Amino acid sequence: MNFNITLEEAQNLILGRCQPVETEYVDLNHALGRILGKDIRAKENIPPFSRSPYDGYAFRAADTLEASKANPVTLEIIEEVPAGYAAQKKINIGQAVKILTGAPIPEGADAVTKYEETKSNGTYVEIYTSCKSGENIVPAGEDVAIDEVIAYKGTVISPPVVGLMSALGITKVEVHKRPRIGIISTGDELLDITEPLSPGKIRNSNAYALAAYCKELGAEPVILGNVCDKTEEVAMFINRGLAEADMVITTGGVSVGDYDVVGDAVKAAGAETLFWKIEIKPGSPSLAAVKDGKLILALSGSPAAAMVIYQLVGIILIKKLAGWSQVFHQQTEVILKKDFRKASPRRRFLRGKLVMEDGVAYVETIGGQGNGVLRSLIGCDILAEIPAGSGPLKAGEKLTGYLLY
Amino acid sequence: MNFNITLEEAQNLILGRCQPVETEYVDLNHALGRILGKDIRAKENIPPFSRSPYDGYAFRAADTLEASKANPVTLEIIEEVPAGYAAQKKINIGQAVKILTGAPIPEGADAVTKYEETKSNGTYVEIYTSCKSGENIVPAGEDVAIDEVIAYKGTVISPPVVGLMSALGITKVEVHKRPRIGIISTGDELLDITEPLSPGKIRNSNAYALAAYCKELGAEPVILGNVCDKTEEVAMFINRGLAEADMVITTGGVSVGDYDVVGDAVKAAGAETLFWKIEIKPGSPSLAAVKDGKLILALSGSPAAAMVIYQLVGIILIKKLAGWSQVFHQQTEVILKKDFRKASPRRRFLRGKLVMEDGVAYVETIGGQGNGVLRSLIGCDILAEIPAGSGPLKAGEKLTGYLLY
Repeated sequence: MNFNITLEEAQNLILGRCQPVETEYVDLNHALGRILGKDIRAKENIPPFSRSPYDGYAFRAADTLEASKANPVTLEIIEEVPAGYAAQKKINIGQAVKILTGAPIPEGADAVTKYEETKSNGTYVEIYTSCKSGENIVPAGEDVAIDEVIAYKGTVISPPVVGLMSALGITKVEVHKRPRIGIISTGDELLDITEPLSPGKIRNSNAYALAAYCKELGAEPVILGNVCDKTEEVAMFINRGLAEADMVITTGGVSVGDYDVVGDAVKAAGAETLFWKIEIKPGSPSLAAVKDGKLILALSGSPAAAMVIYQLVGIILIKKLAGWSQVFHQQTEVILKKDFRKASPRRRFLRGKLVMEDGVAYVETIGGQGNGVLRSLIGCDILAEIPAGSGPLKAGEKLTGYLLY
Repeated sequence: MNFNITLEEAQNLILGRCQPVETEYVDLNHALGRILGKDIRAKENIPPFSRSPYDGYAFRAADTLEASKANPVTLEIIEEVPAGYAAQKKINIGQAVKILTGAPIPEGADAVTKYEETKSNGTYVEIYTSCKSGENIVPAGEDVAIDEVIAYKGTVISPPVVGLMSALGITKVEVHKRPRIGIISTGDELLDITEPLSPGKIRNSNAYALAAYCKELGAEPVILGNVCDKTEEVAMFINRGLAEADMVITTGGVSVGDYDVVGDAVKAAGAETLFWKIEIKPGSPSLAAVKDGKLILALSGSPAAAMVIYQLVGIILIKKLAGWSQVFHQQTEVILKKDFRKASPRRRFLRGKLVMEDGVAYVETIGGQGNGVLRSLIGCDILAEIPAGSGPLKAGEKLTGYLLY
């Protein structure tokens, strides 16, 4: 068992023991936000044919070689093609087709001029400029060429991907199932949200916050309920969670006190402990274990500490499960906006908001940074890292920010 | 009717004619992502009582005034209080209570020392340092004080807000209904996604991309289908959309050609046109109208042009409908990463990806910027504005970026 390890060691230990959940086929209208189970490759060009981007006339560019304002070329209009239809005739020397936006370029034509730049009596049209071959023609495959990959395995299906799939006539798509995340809250002090407060008791907030974070990520939370600080009870809940879900997150009972039973419960449940304690603040007392290929992530009971480790460790684990090919947070340099007065003997992550000013990234810490201050997660879209051994920090200090969205 | 107006005029014209949809109550477990219909104010403190952040001993700070490593103060342990329980006894001079993480501070005590820093034989405990009043005590209301607003009307319910609501025992919450967005695709060239291609035809992609964008924003898309380029047919679809939805978006038929019937259809449907054409590229040929307090936004049929105007105009309109208090995009300076070789006689928005390098914001344009290139929206999280009258731009040029997420 690994004790007091770095964040990166913790991340790698769990990633090494976790495989993506299986895939399923879903209808296109349920595909948004799902993670692709395989590449989407175009079986056709988009657009499928060369077309006109304007209302105008299509003709042979060669016919307009000599055209000018003073000496227009006159072409015979042989047909009109609206969008949605194809020309019946082939264009020959000296001929033109009236063409509408989106209509396919007729056979023989290789240039288009806009209405506004021509003059016509309905039978003939005058062209005033010399055109190049291909001028004002949107080629077939301009958007997507046949055989191109439009979206890769392990990426999220976004609205434009949905649009391109519909253009390609793809009505079903292979995606990873939504991973199920079992959530267990440990602690004799916990009440359910519907219960009135009584001395020493607090209502459970961790399970609901975690469930919401999981949902936001596209996973399916399974709230297993509150369990008292007894090893065998917690072990039973863990095994129930492993049976019902693809992984389990617990909160509370993971420190060193007499009532911190989760470490023992994990063993009693038959799981192998991967690590206990991560050398960061907040959330150091965290633990991970594995049983039959399913992971258990045990977080602190302090809401903010639990949520920070969820962000730093839980999210990458769930992303791996969910089939994402990129699971780590994007990092960027950020400038501290206000003094941070505490020293940081241990590596510390500040909850903050990314603020852009004149194109430069700042981090604004949100309220109190205490372990219990869930409020500091509202609007938090970045975690700013303070290296171990730092003293109090002045505004203007450069830190590494971990982007959460 | 306003013709060829600025983006800002277009935004203000529609915002002035649009009111948020009504509110409803939803269960806490369905609240994530919804827009608050009123402020959430705390009726209790979180935490509800002062508590210990550690396993340790609680006592009167005054008793430890003289304590030091050499001369510890010895206190009598009168009780043990685990989390979830309240002390039965009041602490008097010379007394201590063994207290577990999260347990309420006993009456009479005003300081806590961690286990690790004490020595105990079970009956008595030795304290080695002089403590201040309040030391190692998490005060009631540290996270949220009674009467504080934890989240404001018009903001999104995020996971930590869900957590705080559960801590406060709030099981139902007033949110705006999801606005229903009717989506109509016009054009004789359109096939539905299940149909095979035939000459001159393309499959509808705009309706599916727009529906996905609306869903992503928390709105409820209602796809009304494809309609041919006939004024009275389009008018009928618009009226059907207005009956079924809170607003309508159309694509196609909004330019100046013989088959651009949407302007007439809007009038035939009995709506008042608010504007036609916006002085930007792409997507200039756009139109907005209003009937009985419901808005119609008519976009270009070119996929990328339609999606850019959806981003710049549609989103703020849907946000206003949905009850958001902040509807405009956050803007930030961005540096162009690669040359952009076209001149921009008209104000132009480039589809791009925000890239942070050493804490500085860059925009990387995505593929072709043609009106039909839907692909350029994949990964697009920023629109970068090129002022009207600009020539070709070199990498390094500073632009204003409109953040889309």
